[in-house]
Amino acid sequence: MKILAIDTSSQSASCALTQEGKLLGEFYENVKLTHSQTILPMVQELLKTVRVPLEQVDLFAATGGPGSFTGLRIGLAAVKGMAHALGKPCVAVSTLEALALNLWGQDCLAAPVLDARCAQVYTALFQCGPFGARRLAGDAALSLEEAKNRLKNAGTPIFLVGDGAEMCYNRWKEELPGLRLPAPALRYTRAASVALAAGLPGHAPADPAALAPAYLRLPQAERELLARQAAAKKD
Amino acid sequence: MKILAIDTSSQSASCALTQEGKLLGEFYENVKLTHSQTILPMVQELLKTVRVPLEQVDLFAATGGPGSFTGLRIGLAAVKGMAHALGKPCVAVSTLEALALNLWGQDCLAAPVLDARCAQVYTALFQCGPFGARRLAGDAALSLEEAKNRLKNAGTPIFLVGDGAEMCYNRWKEELPGLRLPAPALRYTRAASVALAAGLPGHAPADPAALAPAYLRLPQAERELLARQAAAKKD
Repeated sequence: MKILAIDTSSQSASCALTQEGKLLGEFYENVKLTHSQTILPMVQELLKTVRVPLEQVDLFAATGGPGSFTGLRIGLAAVKGMAHALGKPCVAVSTLEALALNLWGQDCLAAPVLDARCAQVYTALFQCGPFGARRLAGDAALSLEEAKNRLKNAGTPIFLVGDGAEMCYNRWKEELPGLRLPAPALRYTRAASVALAAGLPGHAPADPAALAPAYLRLPQAERELLARQAAAKKD
Repeated sequence: MKILAIDTSSQSASCALTQEGKLLGEFYENVKLTHSQTILPMVQELLKTVRVPLEQVDLFAATGGPGSFTGLRIGLAAVKGMAHALGKPCVAVSTLEALALNLWGQDCLAAPVLDARCAQVYTALFQCGPFGARRLAGDAALSLEEAKNRLKNAGTPIFLVGDGAEMCYNRWKEELPGLRLPAPALRYTRAASVALAAGLPGHAPADPAALAPAYLRLPQAERELLARQAAAKKD
């Protein structure tokens, strides 16, 4: 089964094609470009390079959140469009699970951290090993303090992955000496890991129409509206 | 400093651009295409995608061996050509060191194994950790038996990487229970790791004319000639 996966959930963008778990190709960029302009040309070039026409893809996958609201919508819309046009199923994978799968095979804890702004991170916790990545805590938006405290008695080594990894490592490394950073190539979401996750049990393919992002928090505009409404009620 | 690295030393082909250790982009394919036809278009697409003109590259790097004789010549010739045309330095990195650097950050042994045919592998041994990959044994062409025996008392876990990793894992796993395979995306040489190696101390940039492959063994035609000459002497 050929799986085409894309990720535009944070700073980087990537696409990958796998077949029965083997990585046939992966294109990745991390230079803060506009995902809506880069991702489809990258997919086109990837398929051209590996000589696989789009029609041969059996399953489409994308990171479904958490992450940048606009980024998630771009990735999901691209995958929904391709899957719908070809009548193929698609699947949304947790961005944090895909990040943990960058460390597939290692004996370690993986704490994915995505910068959620407002002194928060989107985070989760996984036990990695030869079996893959087993979830220990659900996806959540936590304050930097809460996210750090959760790792205090979790065990070691703990690898931080995601676009918040360096920031958290530098803030927490004195207090949490078991923290580690993975190789630079594994620090951000990789479409290869999204495809890997999409092929695992527990990720049932769905109709393109059913695919929806998991934001974890309300968009900023809605949060501000609620805050204004709450303030107005108090007055 | 921007480093452009390419790898065509075995089945897969890839190119990557890094800046001060950060991976700006990486294109990878592993569908047994003709490297001489794919690698330069991939480099061109990568630079176009990340919006970096070739002239801005400060250092060129390629896997210098061991590996496929033709593959190594293609990669080195491409890098020598680009570096010479632009008057920039270049560096050849051990294919086996680049493979070990796929596991940068993990506490493990890395035993890169490239299929050298004739029941041999090109192999080496590295201790990986947060510091990178420290070499424990030099690059060598060993019989499958010699390569296996060397790992018996080496410690655990031992991650096999390279295009011979799955073959060796399946042959040796009963006798060496500490063996592991890394994530599919890390099983083959990645140009991101070649760029990582090229930026480390101990890899002095050289004039393009000085770059030469490290084959470790004589080409098959020369081995056969020597065997015929030895047989003729006996007669």
